[in-house]
Amino acid sequence: MQHKMILDLDTGIDDALAIAYALGSPEIELIGITSEYGNVLTERSVVNSQQILNLLQHPAVPVYQGAGHALNQSDFSVLPISAEIHGQDGVGDIHLQQAVPTGETESAVDFLLTACQQYGSDLTIVATGPMTNLALAIQKDLPTLQKVGQIVIMGGALTVAGNVSPFAEANINQDPEAADLLFKSGLPVTMVGLDVTLRTLFTKADTAEWRAIGTEAAIKYADMVDYYIKAYEVTSPHLHGCALHDPLAVAVAIDPSLVTTFPLNLTTETTGPSRGRTIGDNLRLEDSTTRTQVCVQVDTPRFLNEFKTRIGQLL
Amino acid sequence: MQHKMILDLDTGIDDALAIAYALGSPEIELIGITSEYGNVLTERSVVNSQQILNLLQHPAVPVYQGAGHALNQSDFSVLPISAEIHGQDGVGDIHLQQAVPTGETESAVDFLLTACQQYGSDLTIVATGPMTNLALAIQKDLPTLQKVGQIVIMGGALTVAGNVSPFAEANINQDPEAADLLFKSGLPVTMVGLDVTLRTLFTKADTAEWRAIGTEAAIKYADMVDYYIKAYEVTSPHLHGCALHDPLAVAVAIDPSLVTTFPLNLTTETTGPSRGRTIGDNLRLEDSTTRTQVCVQVDTPRFLNEFKTRIGQLL
Repeated sequence: MQHKMILDLDTGIDDALAIAYALGSPEIELIGITSEYGNVLTERSVVNSQQILNLLQHPAVPVYQGAGHALNQSDFSVLPISAEIHGQDGVGDIHLQQAVPTGETESAVDFLLTACQQYGSDLTIVATGPMTNLALAIQKDLPTLQKVGQIVIMGGALTVAGNVSPFAEANINQDPEAADLLFKSGLPVTMVGLDVTLRTLFTKADTAEWRAIGTEAAIKYADMVDYYIKAYEVTSPHLHGCALHDPLAVAVAIDPSLVTTFPLNLTTETTGPSRGRTIGDNLRLEDSTTRTQVCVQVDTPRFLNEFKTRIGQLL
Repeated sequence: MQHKMILDLDTGIDDALAIAYALGSPEIELIGITSEYGNVLTERSVVNSQQILNLLQHPAVPVYQGAGHALNQSDFSVLPISAEIHGQDGVGDIHLQQAVPTGETESAVDFLLTACQQYGSDLTIVATGPMTNLALAIQKDLPTLQKVGQIVIMGGALTVAGNVSPFAEANINQDPEAADLLFKSGLPVTMVGLDVTLRTLFTKADTAEWRAIGTEAAIKYADMVDYYIKAYEVTSPHLHGCALHDPLAVAVAIDPSLVTTFPLNLTTETTGPSRGRTIGDNLRLEDSTTRTQVCVQVDTPRFLNEFKTRIGQLL
């Protein structure tokens, strides 16, 4: 039986790359996508995921609507910087075809819990938006969530500076309380943070290779990622490309040997100027029962090769 | 030929433990101690090192006077918290016997450079105070310093909070500019920070074992460390002991297998609320030529056993 995977996404451009990486990976079956607010509104995340699945000719993968705002908030507005990085529609304003909604009525949290119940250790959850859906699932039914095989998150910055402040990474910054709940839940979490994702760069030379494939999906993906690279030229000119944040989390979930990890009990700071900082929990340094792993090194050439091969074959 | 070691110390209590660990280690020869301001004034650091060497019956090890203040300062006053942790005299106010000064006239920086010239890769420098002497040596003659085998520092906090602020560790905080110069020098530096030292705890049950040895040195060391543990009961009651910061750096210099490290190009923040924070240098994440290693895990039981055995035999 193929291992099952759920992607929890705030579908912007690198989330779309995560979907393609998952669909291009024969080791796993993508059994559903749950939506988050973040790069876009959660309703838009649903639509974007459906349109991407449609483009990639996997329209039957169900998409579930999830959290619309952080735990301690009552609403959410997309930040102007998110629209600059991901486009007004979140996926590079490349005019994707409308998709027929899959019409799922189950909530994201209930789908996550049902899947944990059904598949247990054969299930991996990859979360690349705020950690709100996972936090809500923890609050609703931690024992069922504990049946999960692994949770891999794209989020946080332990050994490097953040990207929304010197301390905070964007996904964690959206809902530090949710991230803190996740880190202290005892769930098996692997943190794929800026520590490693900033070392996985994709360039216009790479998107040109996709465009040369000539299919609609390949051209749309090239256009979408070019939009993303253009935004990086403004925000991070020293990188000379875009970071493959979200797809790296999927890759690590499938093949942990791509990264070097070490165990660390984490906390998320929720007050002061360093709100959103992910850091070792000084009160739990001696607790050897940690189930949290942090990635600190990545085999960049091997990951890039996997990334190009898996997505290239799909497009 | 035994490997040579120089200790660069601001001799407070855990520096005194570092001296004992070095003298109790047959793998290395302690060829000299250089002094720093920090836990005490640099002049007091010289006196304390001499008195400790005298107590441990190694009065001939030369002690050199070094930096009296940070690079960008013109003087230095001992912080009240330092006196609380280390005692008014820096070594627990246990009335050590006065030592005959070894009368070294060479400066700490010149001694460091001369030793690098003489011993090259057979020399290890362990620095457990501010990084000012090393920075001055870098400014004076980096090519000669580059002959050194390795530099191991006790300082910094990468994956855990600092101890003088949420961001800064005490040694680095004394002179962030010096630490930044060291991290960017290309020298082979291993950072033994709070990440690992906070996991090496010594308790009153341990000092009782020393006291039972009954020699003057054993009793004085037990008294001195009891003073240190008492200070920890106030500042860090959750630890239930004192952290063996400085001796861990000596131990790692002698046996790197005690820790898990990973390579990371570091920077030290020098402005804002996080002044003194040691963090990955985002501008050099892709530079694979890093010679800086950060310790993130420690084999605590094995280190504690080495610590007790080596120092116990010496006392």
